[in-house]
Amino acid sequence: MSGNDALFVGLDVGGTTMKAAVVDASGRPAPSVVMATESFKGQEAGLETMCETIRRAVKAAGKTMADIAGIGVATPGTMDIDAGLILDPPNLKPWQNVPVRQHIQEKFKIPTAFQNDANAAAYGEYWVGAGREVKSMVLFTLGTGVGGGIIIDDKVLQGQHSHGGEIGHMKIELGNARLCGCGRRGCLEAYCSATSVVKRTREALVENKNSSLYPLLAGKEEDLSSRAIFTAAAAGDEFAKKIVDGTAYYLAVGSMNLMHIIDPDAIVFGGGMTAAGEPFLNLVKQYINELAFPVPATKTKIRYAQLGSDAGFIGSAACAKYLVHGVL
Amino acid sequence: MSGNDALFVGLDVGGTTMKAAVVDASGRPAPSVVMATESFKGQEAGLETMCETIRRAVKAAGKTMADIAGIGVATPGTMDIDAGLILDPPNLKPWQNVPVRQHIQEKFKIPTAFQNDANAAAYGEYWVGAGREVKSMVLFTLGTGVGGGIIIDDKVLQGQHSHGGEIGHMKIELGNARLCGCGRRGCLEAYCSATSVVKRTREALVENKNSSLYPLLAGKEEDLSSRAIFTAAAAGDEFAKKIVDGTAYYLAVGSMNLMHIIDPDAIVFGGGMTAAGEPFLNLVKQYINELAFPVPATKTKIRYAQLGSDAGFIGSAACAKYLVHGVL
Repeated sequence: MSGNDALFVGLDVGGTTMKAAVVDASGRPAPSVVMATESFKGQEAGLETMCETIRRAVKAAGKTMADIAGIGVATPGTMDIDAGLILDPPNLKPWQNVPVRQHIQEKFKIPTAFQNDANAAAYGEYWVGAGREVKSMVLFTLGTGVGGGIIIDDKVLQGQHSHGGEIGHMKIELGNARLCGCGRRGCLEAYCSATSVVKRTREALVENKNSSLYPLLAGKEEDLSSRAIFTAAAAGDEFAKKIVDGTAYYLAVGSMNLMHIIDPDAIVFGGGMTAAGEPFLNLVKQYINELAFPVPATKTKIRYAQLGSDAGFIGSAACAKYLVHGVL
Repeated sequence: MSGNDALFVGLDVGGTTMKAAVVDASGRPAPSVVMATESFKGQEAGLETMCETIRRAVKAAGKTMADIAGIGVATPGTMDIDAGLILDPPNLKPWQNVPVRQHIQEKFKIPTAFQNDANAAAYGEYWVGAGREVKSMVLFTLGTGVGGGIIIDDKVLQGQHSHGGEIGHMKIELGNARLCGCGRRGCLEAYCSATSVVKRTREALVENKNSSLYPLLAGKEEDLSSRAIFTAAAAGDEFAKKIVDGTAYYLAVGSMNLMHIIDPDAIVFGGGMTAAGEPFLNLVKQYINELAFPVPATKTKIRYAQLGSDAGFIGSAACAKYLVHGVL
């Protein structure tokens, strides 16, 4: 079992569900399986659910564990990647100091890679998604927060202390700036996560009673979603257009900073907000052209992600492949 | 000539002078030589001066060109690193599209590496200076501007379009922020280069007539230097202390952003402002502790550079070594 015939399992553990599939050496996934994470049942139960998800993925591919050359596992939250440890993840309470890699490796006697979930998603997009022909790539994942991952020359930039690619927490505003979910002020995430877009909208709506979004202020909380805001903007609502425009500007600031630090071949946007489609991407590109140095502004590829929620397990499988073969 | 006996020439071309020395495979430099750049004489003359500086460096080391395994050349300004080209450097007018690497390689028939000067300085510090025992490092060079370089796993992060490590031009303030020398607003450089520190001081001094610096406003322009400001702060001048404090804060913002993007093993500050010594470095560390995630804030090594103006040619020699040996 080696070279191009090798098979890997990628497992992507999230706060609500975990998803896994067998992936071949060229990045093609077999049908995926999903199980509930139920972290409240404790970390022993969680580790067993991870193993069971892996087993089911292998079964779903019509294979046995003997066919698997490597396993890759990605998890959210604070971690020590080199040690294979989940530390104290806010989305997986009450887990603490969980030796994920060691547990899975010993259970299956198969080489196991461990990675941050956002880094793994970036690696998946780099391998067979939006970045499959580029040499370096930054992924911004726009959801509840702003996640990210950086890939350079086939390697995940995980950082010396497992904090590489935490690009949602670069500070883009000084002083008493917008409060981020992390408790800091001025983080990129505080301006252009889906949650922040809604927050900025709620704050400004009070003085924009003519907007088609205004009645939603009094409705159910989930009605005033980032999707509703982008839809209103697309329908011509002037207030919503301003919010969307600001969001594009903030994303361009984040992109520009990465262009002047990493200077990647491609910048890729993933997550729910990508539903906003080409007009929004063009707006981001327009601001990047205004903000960044001309060469990276014109030459960097700016795209949406292509793998959706499969990026995590595909990227985890990529980590397994890199671990076993030493190349992607 | 290979392995640990190999010798390299590192050449660091600046706007005013160029400096070169023979450097051995463990990073020890022979006596360096300096020549005037005189870019106004044109690029043909400039290329010949580079060759002559290299010849003199070899002579100063008591060697001949036959003893040299590789040459490394670093230059400032816009460039295409992979192509070995200086493009349109503001500090080397009127040079344009100068094929530096090819010229030197053909002249001496010796493998020649080419790199941005700030990246080369970072590589020098990483090799045998402030970062010699770390695995990844970011250098901030605080001078007329804020230069920088990023090294990860023995490699210079030069970027896909030669813009990697342009960390002085990360945007840390939105909207109508301070104007940078590059024409953009809100760049880190606009807050904490030596030039910007003086500019911030000039602006604020008008309303701080009690400061010991106030009389310098009416004096010669060079009297109100960043050194004078740091000296006044060290002597207890309250106004100067505020300027220095703000400078430390801005540098901490830049450092924090690099911690959350690159997460390096070490962050190193070089350039004239390092004369401010330990108290200033401690102030920067204090702000980093307030701003950054706890793990990188406490674990990242924060230091001053150690090689002074030799970092550039030593780093250029490191590029030559990496080119020839494939390892540093």
